[in-house]
Amino acid sequence: MQWRGEASTNNGVVEREFRLEVAGRTVPAVVWTPEGSTGPRPLVLLGHGAATHKKTDYIAALGSRLVRHHGFAAAAIDATGHGDRLPDGGKDRERIWAERIASRSNGEFKDFTDDMVADWKATLDAVQTLPEVGDSLPVGYWGLSMGTSLGLPFVAAESRIAVAVFGLMGFATGPSDNPWMERGRIRLGGDAPKITVPVLFIQQWDDELVSRENGLNLFNAIASKDKRLHINPGAHAAVPVEEFDHSEALFVKHLGVVKL
Amino acid sequence: MQWRGEASTNNGVVEREFRLEVAGRTVPAVVWTPEGSTGPRPLVLLGHGAATHKKTDYIAALGSRLVRHHGFAAAAIDATGHGDRLPDGGKDRERIWAERIASRSNGEFKDFTDDMVADWKATLDAVQTLPEVGDSLPVGYWGLSMGTSLGLPFVAAESRIAVAVFGLMGFATGPSDNPWMERGRIRLGGDAPKITVPVLFIQQWDDELVSRENGLNLFNAIASKDKRLHINPGAHAAVPVEEFDHSEALFVKHLGVVKL
Repeated sequence: MQWRGEASTNNGVVEREFRLEVAGRTVPAVVWTPEGSTGPRPLVLLGHGAATHKKTDYIAALGSRLVRHHGFAAAAIDATGHGDRLPDGGKDRERIWAERIASRSNGEFKDFTDDMVADWKATLDAVQTLPEVGDSLPVGYWGLSMGTSLGLPFVAAESRIAVAVFGLMGFATGPSDNPWMERGRIRLGGDAPKITVPVLFIQQWDDELVSRENGLNLFNAIASKDKRLHINPGAHAAVPVEEFDHSEALFVKHLGVVKL
Repeated sequence: MQWRGEASTNNGVVEREFRLEVAGRTVPAVVWTPEGSTGPRPLVLLGHGAATHKKTDYIAALGSRLVRHHGFAAAAIDATGHGDRLPDGGKDRERIWAERIASRSNGEFKDFTDDMVADWKATLDAVQTLPEVGDSLPVGYWGLSMGTSLGLPFVAAESRIAVAVFGLMGFATGPSDNPWMERGRIRLGGDAPKITVPVLFIQQWDDELVSRENGLNLFNAIASKDKRLHINPGAHAAVPVEEFDHSEALFVKHLGVVKL
């Protein structure tokens, strides 16, 4: 766990970046904690969507509010092929997106889910060594879209996660020539029945990337008895702010509240 | 507006029953207001489900919490063929339910939606004459199951309603020999596109009375741009308590908060 640069403090929230070495990969990470905090506290891991990065607007905002409102810790990492794993820091979103789309048909598709599961586990190990976080309190996971496609297999494999928010992702039940669709069918269809923690699943009813049916397939496949599906009108990226409120409330319900 | 019996006060909530005469029908009603309240306040109308009545557990509880938590007023009426509209006060739920089921096939089905729209309008008129309610602040509607099948047409016809919670109801898009299904297709399918206020729609994913598809049909047909669908696992009557929290939050957002 190598710290990078100086810690910055904003509105009571301390932000620190670090790097981890995991099986030859360098994983860029960030952790948010309350200013002056010492004791153990619940932690929420935040998985960003495709073509963004660990400190993109909604991830940084959610991390910050979990710290400020509830005294939690929050952490995020750049996914494989994103953010500081790229030479330009992942700033060229159009290029990342175009390469992802192209890889569906040009034979360059590579499933990096197993790498990401290992990277998330190493990140959780590392953050729990911080005295102001510790390993005595439960952990939550939040990730939509690619944050679900990569995060759901992590949650399925990780017993430390006690509650999760997923969404903007799905799978078709039949085979496809599209390697992304096949990966979803096999990986998400296989891992969703292993998810048993309380789940909020968020779906956009007019999602241009994930069909209604495929989203419902994934919600249905999650084995948790305590799960709820919130559907809002609008496009993939138009998740309303109230779902961030609902996410926050679910984490508080299952992770507790820290005395600030 | 004829008051019935004495007002009762419980935990700061005043409960008063009254009767209205509407087109030859006697409408039994109840209103809940904060103890000692004087000024105008938002009002929420509560529509009960089939075979229950205006003071059934979840209706009385929701009315009470809207008064206690936010200083609102709340009111409910017995639907046609329910509660104090029946000689026994509607206590024989099994009989009411059995007669409703039988009427699907024995030719005794009668659509009393238009009566109920008129009864609700008269109730709203009456409650707004109370000085502690008034007609200067917005009004909400909450009703699931039969509370939607009868309440949605009322909200479609009533411009004073500013926000609504519906659910546990739907319609098939194709014709049916079942008069209840036909009534839903024509009435709900016709009125849902007239609903434009913010809506929370609550659906049970394993509903034994309303299919997933029919529920989604109704959600889709509602014209409101500001609408959200919350789906929970479980049977028709197993709506989790968190949806009452979400209902309350939506009313507060759109009706405001009264200084208590």
